[in-house]
Amino acid sequence: MASSKELNLQLQEIATWLWQKDDIVILTHKHPDGDTLGAAFGLYYAFIENGKSACVINADSFPEKFSYFYPSSMKVSDGQIIVAVDIADAQLLGGSLEAYREKVDLCIDHHRINRLSSKRKFVDEHASSTCEIVFELLQYWGITVSQRAADALYTGICTDTGCFRYSNTTAASLRVAAKLMDCGARAEEINRTMFEIKSFARLSLERIVLDEMKFYYENRCCLVTVTNAMMLQAKADESTFDGIPAMTRMVEGVQIGVTIREKDSMHYKISFRTSQEVDASALAACFNGGGHVRAAGCTMEGTLEEVHDRLLDEIGRWVK
Amino acid sequence: MASSKELNLQLQEIATWLWQKDDIVILTHKHPDGDTLGAAFGLYYAFIENGKSACVINADSFPEKFSYFYPSSMKVSDGQIIVAVDIADAQLLGGSLEAYREKVDLCIDHHRINRLSSKRKFVDEHASSTCEIVFELLQYWGITVSQRAADALYTGICTDTGCFRYSNTTAASLRVAAKLMDCGARAEEINRTMFEIKSFARLSLERIVLDEMKFYYENRCCLVTVTNAMMLQAKADESTFDGIPAMTRMVEGVQIGVTIREKDSMHYKISFRTSQEVDASALAACFNGGGHVRAAGCTMEGTLEEVHDRLLDEIGRWVK
Repeated sequence: MASSKELNLQLQEIATWLWQKDDIVILTHKHPDGDTLGAAFGLYYAFIENGKSACVINADSFPEKFSYFYPSSMKVSDGQIIVAVDIADAQLLGGSLEAYREKVDLCIDHHRINRLSSKRKFVDEHASSTCEIVFELLQYWGITVSQRAADALYTGICTDTGCFRYSNTTAASLRVAAKLMDCGARAEEINRTMFEIKSFARLSLERIVLDEMKFYYENRCCLVTVTNAMMLQAKADESTFDGIPAMTRMVEGVQIGVTIREKDSMHYKISFRTSQEVDASALAACFNGGGHVRAAGCTMEGTLEEVHDRLLDEIGRWVK
Repeated sequence: MASSKELNLQLQEIATWLWQKDDIVILTHKHPDGDTLGAAFGLYYAFIENGKSACVINADSFPEKFSYFYPSSMKVSDGQIIVAVDIADAQLLGGSLEAYREKVDLCIDHHRINRLSSKRKFVDEHASSTCEIVFELLQYWGITVSQRAADALYTGICTDTGCFRYSNTTAASLRVAAKLMDCGARAEEINRTMFEIKSFARLSLERIVLDEMKFYYENRCCLVTVTNAMMLQAKADESTFDGIPAMTRMVEGVQIGVTIREKDSMHYKISFRTSQEVDASALAACFNGGGHVRAAGCTMEGTLEEVHDRLLDEIGRWVK
């Protein structure tokens, strides 16, 4: 692993190289979240506000939730330079961006394992978010960070850290957030939109999840199954479901929270959330999944009962 | 209102004056929270680790929840110097501290209106918390902030800002929190204890509150009544109830969230939580209450129906 001094030098070199370029396409991952979009638009504004041409694309569409930092219009080009932000694996490009698989010039990420093929790569697994890295990059350029860029970057840091709550929050993350507030980031509104305001569908879904929670291994494991029928009952869509898995880790004594989300018949997305006793990414790896140390996931197939039993069987070996 | 430069000078003078003193009693407010206790113990450790004698007292008892920053033992004395932290009014001293009403030498607070009688007073309404002020005070002393003091001060900042979510969070608050992490504050554990881990009683109470929420004025007002029967049903005590009023403000479109908490027969504690459209303290003032701009409260008497009607009647004049 590179030392923090080596990382600084690496980032400085990348900053110098990137600043010479123009006509940049910024790729975000499929099912885009606050960090991939925040990092992309933070970079995008830095480019266009300094006379360069750039655009942001993703395989899905831009979620309405983050519209407060989107530009009113954006011209999409083929690009001379392809930059991927927060994309840990080619699979995360998504179908329509598949053509970029071998064409990425620079990959910026904070995931511990990054498998994306890229000519240049900057990965700092100790950064709370890709946005935190992008802010440091902008600092090397010595440019003014505009309010809309600050809003975008603040969004990624606050969403990836659960508003500075999670273990990935460092003193450096707080300092970057403070600087972004100095640049005009509307922290209060962003935090309220991201963390406080809940739709009626979300309230219904949370009520159902609270009712459906099951506890195992002397309450050290909390498991909840969210079926398509429950989603329908709550009038919830996929974006309503974001953040629901974190609910499993919030009960006293729970070390491993598991959410089984029914996708199609016999197909499930599993989310693991752990307390500091358990490495979620190592647990997910037992099921060919991955992620972060406190939040990871995998997919599984079979009947609900089979999936349930296989999960609980493995979890029994992990609770402390 | 004093300018920030004047405030800095004031605090510096107070720091110089206080550093010459010894045998200090630190008063916290009744029903003590993270900020009053964090500020008190942050000061306490600064004193005792630098050869002074000090103690912390309050009218109730020290809540178990914050035990991670309490000393293993503490000798209570009468004190030469009386310092009150986060106490906005003599009423908040509580019964057993009533004798200190006219004896306070220094009052440190961040409430907009501070009515406590005190020989010296430092009030900065723009500080997120009293802990943020105490940290600045410690900086003037140029002393090392120990890990336990950092834990205490971090606790007050994170609890009073809802983990850096609320409008009182400034870039300065984030920088102080970053410095406290540098001093060893165990942010991850503290955040998980304060914001994430919920008891089974708390989960039950939240489920009940979600079921009981009523909406008025085109969903711009959310009102919930929590009776003693509901508290019993959830096996909840008063500390379980802390933070419940914030739930009323989290629903999309809500500008005013109101929680009516039944105390005794015909007696209620009312909590107001508002979005940025409404000044909660001004609304509370209509019922002889007070507080902060987004969180305030009052007490009311009558039948539940009367209280309900009087509240909704007034709120109709406040929703935008």
